[in-house]
Amino acid sequence: MSLEVFVAETFGTMLLLLLGTGVVANVALAKTKGNNGGFLMVNFGWGLAVFAGVYVAALSGAHLNFAVTIGLLFSDAAEYAPGVDKTFATTLGYLAAQMLGSIVGAVLCWLSYKNHFDEEPDPANKLGVFATGPAIRSYGWNLVTEVIATFVLVLVILSFAGTPTQIGPLAVALLVVGIGASLGGPTGYAINPNRDLGPRIAHAFLPIKGKGSSDWAYAWVPFFGPIVGGALAGIVVQFISFPVIAA
Amino acid sequence: MSLEVFVAETFGTMLLLLLGTGVVANVALAKTKGNNGGFLMVNFGWGLAVFAGVYVAALSGAHLNFAVTIGLLFSDAAEYAPGVDKTFATTLGYLAAQMLGSIVGAVLCWLSYKNHFDEEPDPANKLGVFATGPAIRSYGWNLVTEVIATFVLVLVILSFAGTPTQIGPLAVALLVVGIGASLGGPTGYAINPNRDLGPRIAHAFLPIKGKGSSDWAYAWVPFFGPIVGGALAGIVVQFISFPVIAA
Amino acid sequence: MSLEVFVAETFGTMLLLLLGTGVVANVALAKTKGNNGGFLMVNFGWGLAVFAGVYVAALSGAHLNFAVTIGLLFSDAAEYAPGVDKTFATTLGYLAAQMLGSIVGAVLCWLSYKNHFDEEPDPANKLGVFATGPAIRSYGWNLVTEVIATFVLVLVILSFAGTPTQIGPLAVALLVVGIGASLGGPTGYAINPNRDLGPRIAHAFLPIKGKGSSDWAYAWVPFFGPIVGGALAGIVVQFISFPVIAA
Amino acid sequence: MSLEVFVAETFGTMLLLLLGTGVVANVALAKTKGNNGGFLMVNFGWGLAVFAGVYVAALSGAHLNFAVTIGLLFSDAAEYAPGVDKTFATTLGYLAAQMLGSIVGAVLCWLSYKNHFDEEPDPANKLGVFATGPAIRSYGWNLVTEVIATFVLVLVILSFAGTPTQIGPLAVALLVVGIGASLGGPTGYAINPNRDLGPRIAHAFLPIKGKGSSDWAYAWVPFFGPIVGGALAGIVVQFISFPVIAA
Repeated sequence: MSLEVFVAETFGTMLLLLLGTGVVANVALAKTKGNNGGFLMVNFGWGLAVFAGVYVAALSGAHLNFAVTIGLLFSDAAEYAPGVDKTFATTLGYLAAQMLGSIVGAVLCWLSYKNHFDEEPDPANKLGVFATGPAIRSYGWNLVTEVIATFVLVLVILSFAGTPTQIGPLAVALLVVGIGASLGGPTGYAINPNRDLGPRIAHAFLPIKGKGSSDWAYAWVPFFGPIVGGALAGIVVQFISFPVIAA
Repeated sequence: MSLEVFVAETFGTMLLLLLGTGVVANVALAKTKGNNGGFLMVNFGWGLAVFAGVYVAALSGAHLNFAVTIGLLFSDAAEYAPGVDKTFATTLGYLAAQMLGSIVGAVLCWLSYKNHFDEEPDPANKLGVFATGPAIRSYGWNLVTEVIATFVLVLVILSFAGTPTQIGPLAVALLVVGIGASLGGPTGYAINPNRDLGPRIAHAFLPIKGKGSSDWAYAWVPFFGPIVGGALAGIVVQFISFPVIAA
Repeated sequence: MSLEVFVAETFGTMLLLLLGTGVVANVALAKTKGNNGGFLMVNFGWGLAVFAGVYVAALSGAHLNFAVTIGLLFSDAAEYAPGVDKTFATTLGYLAAQMLGSIVGAVLCWLSYKNHFDEEPDPANKLGVFATGPAIRSYGWNLVTEVIATFVLVLVILSFAGTPTQIGPLAVALLVVGIGASLGGPTGYAINPNRDLGPRIAHAFLPIKGKGSSDWAYAWVPFFGPIVGGALAGIVVQFISFPVIAA
Repeated sequence: MSLEVFVAETFGTMLLLLLGTGVVANVALAKTKGNNGGFLMVNFGWGLAVFAGVYVAALSGAHLNFAVTIGLLFSDAAEYAPGVDKTFATTLGYLAAQMLGSIVGAVLCWLSYKNHFDEEPDPANKLGVFATGPAIRSYGWNLVTEVIATFVLVLVILSFAGTPTQIGPLAVALLVVGIGASLGGPTGYAINPNRDLGPRIAHAFLPIKGKGSSDWAYAWVPFFGPIVGGALAGIVVQFISFPVIAA
C-alpha cells in the first residue's frame, strides 16, 4: 500500500467521522443551531459525510469502513482498489488508516463544538456524539441488528458495479441515509467498526469537560457486528451472480 | 427464467421490504432512536429501500413489484428484462420471487427490531410495520387511491426510457419518495401487491409478542389496486407514444 | 404542434398537479397519514411532482409551466422542443395543454383524497390544496415575490444547457425544492400560472363537500406574476451570455 | 477577466444569496408559510441555493465564494476557470463580483419577504436573515469552527476532479447540505466570506423597519475564518496527491 493510498483512506475516513459525529453533536448538544433537528437530519448528515469522504479517498477506493474492506476480502473482487492487492498487509493498512482517520475526525468534531461540549450537562449526550449505544440494551439482539444492517450496506456496495448508473459517490451516500432511517432505530447504526471504536477512543483520551464513562462494555457489538455483516455480504454476493469490482 | 434472475428478484425485493418495513418500525415502535421521525422520513426510507433493492436485482430488471411486472405485460415492451421473455411462466416467476423476497424481508425486519416489537404495547403499531391500512376505511375510495398512485408509479417507470438521463436507480427511488409524500396520505401507499401481502403473511405466522389481528378484510385492496393501476399504465403508455423498454 | 406533443405536455402537467396538490392535501387535510408533515415535505412533494411530470413529457420539452414557455419565447432559443417551432399557435397550444392537464390533475387529487376532503372541516384548507394564497395579503408585494421566484426558476432552467451535467430531470426537481423552501414563504409559490389557475377552476366546479369561496380576487397574482418573471428571465438570459436551448 | 465572466460570477452569487437568505427568512420571520421549518430545511435551502447559482455561473467556474477562489489560488490549479488566469487582478475581480452579487441577492430577499420583515417584532431575527451569528459567542472557538468547516468544503470541492462522477453541480449542493447539518451548529456556517459580509452591508443600508444593530463586532470571524480554511485546503490538497482543476 503506497503512502498516497494510506493518506487518501485516512483523510476520507477523517471527513466521514468529522461530519458524521458533527451532525450528532448539532442535534444532541446544548444550545446548537440544529438542536433537536430530528433523526432524518442525522441520517442525511451521516449519508453526506460518506459523500464528502468518498471524494477525497478516490485513490484508496474509499472504503472508509473496515466492514467494506472485509466484504471485498471475502468477495471475489480482484483487488481493494486499482493497484492495491488484497493481502494481509494491505488489509491491516486499511484498518490502520481508518482508525487513524476516525480518531482525528472525532477530535476535529470536538474542537468544532468545543463550547457546546462545555455547556452540555448530560454526559450521555457527550458520549452519544462519539460512540453508538443501543436504545434497548441486549447484546445479542443488538449484534443481530448491526450484522443485518451492515450486510445490507456491503451487499449493495458490492453490487454497484452490476448496475449501470453515473451517480458514483452519491449512491453510497443515499444508501447510508436509507439504512440509517430504516435500520438505525435499535442501535444507532454503527455499520462500520471504526465509526464506533475510533471516536470512542477519542472520547476516552480527550479532556472533555464533565464527561462520563466511555461504555467499553458495549464496544465489541459495533466492532464485530459490522465485520460479520461485511464478511457475509462478501460471501453472498458471489452466489447472486453479480460481477464484483472494487467499489 | 433462470435461477440467477429468480434469485436477483428475490434478493432485491427482500432488501426493499427489509428497509421499507424497517423505517416504519423505526418511526412507529416504542423506544427506537427514530421514534416519531415524521412522514417525510418514512417517504425517504421507502424510496431509498427501492434504491438499495434495484442495485442487487439488475439481472431481473429489478421489478420488485408485481404492478411493474403487470405494467410491462400490458405495455408493448418486448421482454421483462434482457433475455427474460414475457410468458405466463415468467410472470408467475416474478410473482413468486417477489412474494418470497417480501416475506423474508419482513422477517429480517422483525429480527432487527425484535426488542422494540416486544416492548411496543399497541398491536396496531405492530401490524402497521408489516401491512398498510387506510386512514379512513372505505374500501371503494381506498381502492381508487391505490389505483391512481400505482398508475402514476408505473406510468413514469415505463416512461424512463423516453427521457435521457444518467441517474438510473435514483430516478425510481425519488419517484417513490414523491408518490409517498403526495398520494400516501389516505392508504399508506402499498402501490405494490407484494409490499402488503408478503409482510402480512409474515405477520400472521411470526411469533410476534402481543400481536393482534392481521386485518385480512383489507388485504384485497392493496393487492388488486396496484395490479389495476399497473395494467392501466401499461395500456396508457402505448397511447402517449413513448418508446417502452424493460425498466 | 402534433397531437403527440400536446398529449405529452398534458400528461406531464397532469402528473405535476396530481402529485403537487396531493402533497398539500396530505399535509393539510384531516386524518391523513402525513398530517402536519411540515413545509420541507411540501417542498419535496412539489419538486418530485415536477420530476415525475418531466419524464412523461419528453416529447414536448416538458415545460409543464406557462412561465417556462414564455421564458423560451422571450429568449433566443430556436424552438420550444425538438421539432416544435415558436409560433403564436404553438404558444397557445402549450397553454391549452397545461391548463387541461392541470385541471385533470387537480380532479384526480380530489378523487385520491375524497374521504379526507369530506371530513376536513375548514374550507380554507380545502381551497389551499387547489390554489395558492398569500400569508399576508398585499397584492403588490405578493406579485413582487411571484415575479422574483419565477425569474429565478426560469433563469436557471434556461441556463441548464450551459453547465455540463448528466442528472437531467432531477436538476429541475431540486431547483423547485429549493425555490419552494427559500421563496415560498410569502405566497406559497405558484411560480407557474396554470399551477394556480387550473386547480382553482377545478375547485370552482367540483362538488367538494363544504367548500367555500374560490378566492378569485387573488387569482391574477399567481397568473401574471409568473408570466412576468418568466419573460424577464428569457430577456436577461441573453445578456448573461449563455447558450440557450429548449429545456 | 472578461465582462461575461464577471457578470456570470455576479449572477451566480446573487442567486446563492437570494435563495440562501430566503430560506432563513422563511424559517425565521413572522407569519411565513415555512415558519419553524427546522434546521434541515435551512440546510437544504442553502445547498440548493448553491445548486441554482452554479448553473448560471458556468463561465466563471462558479466559485460563488471567496474561500473557493482562495483555495484555488493556494492550490496548484492552473487557472480559476477555463480561460481565466490566476492573477492579482482576477482574484480581486472574483471578490468584487461576489460582493456585488451577494449584496444584490440580499436586497432581492428583502423585497421578496418585505411584508414579513415589517411584521417581525424581533430585530435579531431580521439580522439573522442577513448575517450569521454564533450560538455561543466566543470569537476564538467560533473562528476554529469556521476554519474547519470551510477547510472541509474547499478540500472536497478541489477533490471533485479526482473522482469520476457525472452529477456536476449537485455534488457541491449536497456537500453544502451536509456541512451545514454537521458543522453549522455553533456559528450558523458562513463558510464563505461574502455570504456574511455582503448581506450584512445590505442590512446596514436597507431601510428595514425596526431593525437593530448589524453586529459588526462579529463580522471579522465569518470573513477571515473561511479565507483561512480555504487557503489551508488549497495547500493540503497538493499533499494528498489529487489532480486539481478549476471546480
